[in-house]
Amino acid sequence: MSPVELYDTTLRDGTQREGIALSVPDKLRVARAIDELGVAYLEGGWPGANPKDTEFFAAAASGELALQRTTLTAFGMTRRPSAEAATDPQLAALLEAATDVVCLVGKSHVRHVTEAIGTTLEENLAMIADSVALLRAEGRRVIFDAEHFFDGHELDPAYATAVLEAAADAGAETVVLCDTNGGMLPHQVQTVTTKVVDHLADRPVGVGMHMHNDTGCAVANSLLGLQAGATHVQGTINGGGERCGNADLGTVAADLALKLGHDVMDEQALARLTPTAHAVAETMNLNPDAHAPYVGHAAFAHKAGLHASAMAKDPMLYQHIDPELVGNGTRLLVSELAGRANVRLKGAELGVDLDQDPTAVERVLDRVKTMEQAGYTFEAADASFELLLREELGETAERFAVESLRVIVDRGDEDDTRAEATMRVWVEGHRSIGTGEGNGPVDALDQAFRAAVNGALPPLDRISLVDYKVRILDDGAGTGATTRVLVTSTDGEGDWQTIGVSPNIIEASWKAMADAYRFGLRRAALREHA
Amino acid sequence: MSPVELYDTTLRDGTQREGIALSVPDKLRVARAIDELGVAYLEGGWPGANPKDTEFFAAAASGELALQRTTLTAFGMTRRPSAEAATDPQLAALLEAATDVVCLVGKSHVRHVTEAIGTTLEENLAMIADSVALLRAEGRRVIFDAEHFFDGHELDPAYATAVLEAAADAGAETVVLCDTNGGMLPHQVQTVTTKVVDHLADRPVGVGMHMHNDTGCAVANSLLGLQAGATHVQGTINGGGERCGNADLGTVAADLALKLGHDVMDEQALARLTPTAHAVAETMNLNPDAHAPYVGHAAFAHKAGLHASAMAKDPMLYQHIDPELVGNGTRLLVSELAGRANVRLKGAELGVDLDQDPTAVERVLDRVKTMEQAGYTFEAADASFELLLREELGETAERFAVESLRVIVDRGDEDDTRAEATMRVWVEGHRSIGTGEGNGPVDALDQAFRAAVNGALPPLDRISLVDYKVRILDDGAGTGATTRVLVTSTDGEGDWQTIGVSPNIIEASWKAMADAYRFGLRRAALREHA
Repeated sequence: MSPVELYDTTLRDGTQREGIALSVPDKLRVARAIDELGVAYLEGGWPGANPKDTEFFAAAASGELALQRTTLTAFGMTRRPSAEAATDPQLAALLEAATDVVCLVGKSHVRHVTEAIGTTLEENLAMIADSVALLRAEGRRVIFDAEHFFDGHELDPAYATAVLEAAADAGAETVVLCDTNGGMLPHQVQTVTTKVVDHLADRPVGVGMHMHNDTGCAVANSLLGLQAGATHVQGTINGGGERCGNADLGTVAADLALKLGHDVMDEQALARLTPTAHAVAETMNLNPDAHAPYVGHAAFAHKAGLHASAMAKDPMLYQHIDPELVGNGTRLLVSELAGRANVRLKGAELGVDLDQDPTAVERVLDRVKTMEQAGYTFEAADASFELLLREELGETAERFAVESLRVIVDRGDEDDTRAEATMRVWVEGHRSIGTGEGNGPVDALDQAFRAAVNGALPPLDRISLVDYKVRILDDGAGTGATTRVLVTSTDGEGDWQTIGVSPNIIEASWKAMADAYRFGLRRAALREHA
Repeated sequence: MSPVELYDTTLRDGTQREGIALSVPDKLRVARAIDELGVAYLEGGWPGANPKDTEFFAAAASGELALQRTTLTAFGMTRRPSAEAATDPQLAALLEAATDVVCLVGKSHVRHVTEAIGTTLEENLAMIADSVALLRAEGRRVIFDAEHFFDGHELDPAYATAVLEAAADAGAETVVLCDTNGGMLPHQVQTVTTKVVDHLADRPVGVGMHMHNDTGCAVANSLLGLQAGATHVQGTINGGGERCGNADLGTVAADLALKLGHDVMDEQALARLTPTAHAVAETMNLNPDAHAPYVGHAAFAHKAGLHASAMAKDPMLYQHIDPELVGNGTRLLVSELAGRANVRLKGAELGVDLDQDPTAVERVLDRVKTMEQAGYTFEAADASFELLLREELGETAERFAVESLRVIVDRGDEDDTRAEATMRVWVEGHRSIGTGEGNGPVDALDQAFRAAVNGALPPLDRISLVDYKVRILDDGAGTGATTRVLVTSTDGEGDWQTIGVSPNIIEASWKAMADAYRFGLRRAALREHA
């Protein structure tokens, strides 16, 4: 196999999954996480198609995104039928996104050309050639996504191939074969990709794969396409996407790197695969799939019993790779969630020296295990985890304690719902009570806390809660289910994430908020001493 | 491809998934559901290994199970090293299970023989031959699972092949190549299976596939093995199993039947694939995967907008099969881009005739647009959308009205948070007040509503809220952000989804719950009139 480049489309095709709505800060967070994996390309979105994507590219162009290892690309369509490329608003928005690389999508299926966009086959070729040429003339590198390619090739192989040639001849550096409806089986992908690679062998153009999972074969189809001579592969972190999702790019990368000896991710990036997949899922407000290949919580879980002694002799008799290579771990018992090495690594990452206390790692592990059983997850709540570590080392000094809280929500008619909260708080030996009103109960709690503290903790004024996420665990338990709340807070100089879990959503919210204030106050104290 | 037989191991390998614990009645229910699919074999469990499995086979032998279309098999291990087959307790338990067909597992990897079970390579061959011969002598048909076959073949192909020969020569009718650790890639499976099929061509024995999903390729590997000459394939409904799961037998079956023209399931059985997969998931207490190939709730979901007119002309331009073939349906997601065609199609899907009122579509569109701007989304809330449609047609008759509601959450210390709600409700001209307590505020509201209604709406007793999801919109607005609540409810015969949106999470929850009750009461009224 020739060298392979990974192309991530989590932020564009991945958001086509039903119910996904990412804010611009969410998109920036996902982009930075994926950047650390060192994939060749990261598709940021479709500028012009929606305001958030346009805003995202503006943030990127302003230097706010500051990607280190990956090349940002913008996605868009070819020019409209019977129009000029130079005045096409879509292409203008693509150029305005100011990325070095553009991914342009066009039709390669005759019926999609004539029926879906209602133009002639010749005009479609011209639309592709003109659009690629314009982008090239403006100094962009172009990747061309041939939509519905495999279905199109089945119906009319000559036309589907002519589309690829039009893009290549106009200057596209890669033409990507898309299984847009996801219906292909492995043997079809092998045959067609081999033909295409062979057909384009004389041109200075690479072939790429973009597979969907509607037959359950997206990963295999991607690999087989690469083995047939493709050199570029598109997918999404966690395999999210419309309908049954896209090829899971993390799985493809691990298969390529660990089983086919491909240099698609270096050792350090591979070891970040598991935490990155989980962080991306959390930011998208999805539960990480426990059974996902490589990165799933259960991917290396063994019911120990029978195999325990053989496992101890040689774990590789029972697992297909060493899970540490992808940042995951072997789990022998049902609830062994975090390994010692992980906690130690995490401590080092946070600047907490766990070696000063010989039983600290053990105690932290015990606590994490208990809390994770209750529904906590520290993958997206670094600040709560740091507070827990410091607490185990006896480092924390509580600045406040809550004696009681009460929230009342009432409404007389549709348009008149009120939320009110009251808190009794101790700050430095002094007890006070405060009441606040808000849009909702959580907002009211925030106001009540600030009213009760009443200026006794000045740094609090700079701390604000900027994001609040709720996840219901044990789905199926209805309104009595456990609730997990993740809060992002800022003091204007940085932000941090905290977590709270409870069957009562108000309680879960308060726990996450209390950690947020504690962490923010600690940051402020450190800055004062610095 | 030769004829292919499907072998279901949901009740044995499928229960190896972490957290699965099926009672005997659960196992009987799953077996009956799978029976309707008409798979060739259904593996009931491992008699002797655990009391529930022994009990399950006793129920089957007594006629209580009464399978119509599938052949029940029992799973077990070969005899112990240096012992007699005739007196082996494992084999005795297998015979006692009284199935016509037995699936026997044995080692085919030299290191598993010498290290895990600690015997010689010769003795392992004898264990296999003796055990198969004993079962044959007792009148059983034997399928032989060669554990760790692909890894074993990589290490010592001659020995792995000798194991298959030993089983075949002793009378096994099928030898199954297991990728027990799940680490194989498609090209490896193709190569090895082709070799094995070729090697065994002279013997009266079939070759089977048993694949795990640790590289994300279980379905593709199964298909490629069959295309290389295997004639038997093992898997589980919904792809459950240890670690990353087994090959999803439903996906494999649909791929084989609909794309490779195989007679593995008849038309009626295929059309039961979606309800069966969901029923099996429910019995195993798992959430059906919305993104699963063929059977997922989102497997044929389309964000219509742009494509609506082309979709209306020919839906097959946008989907790889007709979803009705597998008992699933096309879902058009009503989104902000919703056009008239969409609303009309959606109305038809719900059996609401929008043509009877000339301005209805326009009014619905306006309302959807306004509500979507406020944060509503009807993609996952069909019931709320149907209520909206019917309301615009003047069809709704409200069964209840809420005069006021109040929720109080308070806590004195960590372990003592209480939630209480009070509602004033009008039902058929009668006003009443009710109070309820709950785990959290939403649970308390549900209790308070039922207490206030106090039996005046009898169908309410059959309606329960089974799932509750919360999403925070306009992230970045912190604790004052808009909250979207999605509720799934059931009356034991079907379920429906409703939505509520508000900056106040309690208010958003109540809106979704009120729609849930309204929709459920309407269903009950329709049933009464039917």
